[in-house]
Amino acid sequence: MNDKVKLVEVGPRDGLQNEPGLVPTAVKIALVERLADCGLSHIEAASFVSPKWVPQMADGHAVLTGIRRRPQVIYSALTPNMHGLEAALTAGADEVAVFTAASESFCRHNIHCSIAESLTRFAPLLALARQHRLRVRGYVSTVLGCPYEGKVSPAAVARVADALYQLGCAEVSLGDTIGIGTPNRARAMLTAVRQHVPIENLAVHFHDTYGQALANIHALLEGGIRIIDSSVAGLGGCPYAPGASGNVATEDLVYLLNGLGMDTGVDLDRLVDTGRWISQQLGRHNGSKVGLAWPK
Amino acid sequence: MNDKVKLVEVGPRDGLQNEPGLVPTAVKIALVERLADCGLSHIEAASFVSPKWVPQMADGHAVLTGIRRRPQVIYSALTPNMHGLEAALTAGADEVAVFTAASESFCRHNIHCSIAESLTRFAPLLALARQHRLRVRGYVSTVLGCPYEGKVSPAAVARVADALYQLGCAEVSLGDTIGIGTPNRARAMLTAVRQHVPIENLAVHFHDTYGQALANIHALLEGGIRIIDSSVAGLGGCPYAPGASGNVATEDLVYLLNGLGMDTGVDLDRLVDTGRWISQQLGRHNGSKVGLAWPK
Repeated sequence: MNDKVKLVEVGPRDGLQNEPGLVPTAVKIALVERLADCGLSHIEAASFVSPKWVPQMADGHAVLTGIRRRPQVIYSALTPNMHGLEAALTAGADEVAVFTAASESFCRHNIHCSIAESLTRFAPLLALARQHRLRVRGYVSTVLGCPYEGKVSPAAVARVADALYQLGCAEVSLGDTIGIGTPNRARAMLTAVRQHVPIENLAVHFHDTYGQALANIHALLEGGIRIIDSSVAGLGGCPYAPGASGNVATEDLVYLLNGLGMDTGVDLDRLVDTGRWISQQLGRHNGSKVGLAWPK
Repeated sequence: MNDKVKLVEVGPRDGLQNEPGLVPTAVKIALVERLADCGLSHIEAASFVSPKWVPQMADGHAVLTGIRRRPQVIYSALTPNMHGLEAALTAGADEVAVFTAASESFCRHNIHCSIAESLTRFAPLLALARQHRLRVRGYVSTVLGCPYEGKVSPAAVARVADALYQLGCAEVSLGDTIGIGTPNRARAMLTAVRQHVPIENLAVHFHDTYGQALANIHALLEGGIRIIDSSVAGLGGCPYAPGASGNVATEDLVYLLNGLGMDTGVDLDRLVDTGRWISQQLGRHNGSKVGLAWPK
């Protein structure tokens, strides 16, 4: 069994985006720099969505241009459209990400178009990214359930993942956006998707809303997944369940992977420090159990 | 695959015992009654240990004699010695539990004797219980690690579990007391133990100190375990890591088992209500993620 796992740290983007208050740009920059110092090699640092929709992310340019870059680290940004991609290019993002969903209602609520329209919109974006030799990641939301439609079929997820891969996404991240999944359904979903997209091009992205994230991730690691998204201190919340948990905490994930003898390149002591620091900066309960239990 | 899972609710004992403040007897009684109303069929309701060591549990007699009993429910009590067993018999416990450890240092710190001495002490207790047709459960602590010794070998756990089973314990509960384990080590431990004790006589007991409990439990469910200890609202803490999490939350466990299509007999809506109620009574953060996310 290949024991290298690639972690994609989404705390500065997916995490902070779902925090209630505005976070100062200097804190975001310090967070990204600290995460890189922990050995995280892929950090989603900004989002070039309309500040009308997501005011928390309006300072993406300042963040990406303000960080002291480490040459080995990939700093990425979310880019919903051509306008976003151009902004990401200007700010010097190393990689960009597009996002759609596996359920129509969620797609419409979240990005105000159908799944098919979202894919059409991505085509020129992927073409321009290719010209700039920019790697593109594709997110699929609601892969294990939708807050509007309930269950989502593995076949529906496979269709969208396949479409993103065919469009040229180098990596497709499968998101349990509302954290509703359990291991058997997670496995059934992955089985359907990997018939279309090679497992080494697939990532998983679990929110821990119902406490199931690590159990699901462990089941999918055994199914061959080696790219996992997570968020330091479990940053973020769930807009559909106020008070609920955010992304799976990177600290708890690294603890699991260390225990399984897998290699992440992350220094857990420093990561715990970073999680405690950002929780304090945000005046927020530390969402990582490792962060709470680790010796001071 | 057999889809029935027996849950042993340890919140009123292992949970409350590790809460910082004293809990009124009336609250304990109401908690036990509410848990039974949720469909939980095995509830550890009291502990007859010396009030000098565990003042939180001094009202065991009042709790066991104060609850309105449901005939289908087993109300059990922890009994470290003959004195405790006699108290449990007087109070009308349906089942009792003895406890020892897989690591010598923990055993000495926790119950002030060696593992061998603890087993010697249990022999007359089990004989008396047998006379009274009282079922006895045996707890083994520190099965995946010890706060004093670090790693604990699967062989050491198997020796103690075997000894408890040979002494007449009907069920042996394997406890990751400090929540330190990850799935591969948990499986190696179970593999060693089941060579001595039939799997249907084994339970697992995970604390969620490092957020690994559900991932471990899921791995062991796949290994055949069908008896699991848990605690409503994740009650309890870890005396070795102040601020850290307690037992795995019953709500999160039931959510997992429901998702796997397994049958627990528990009404999750009522259980979430009970977890919220007891968290409020104790002025405590609800330790169940399901409890935080579930619709009001």
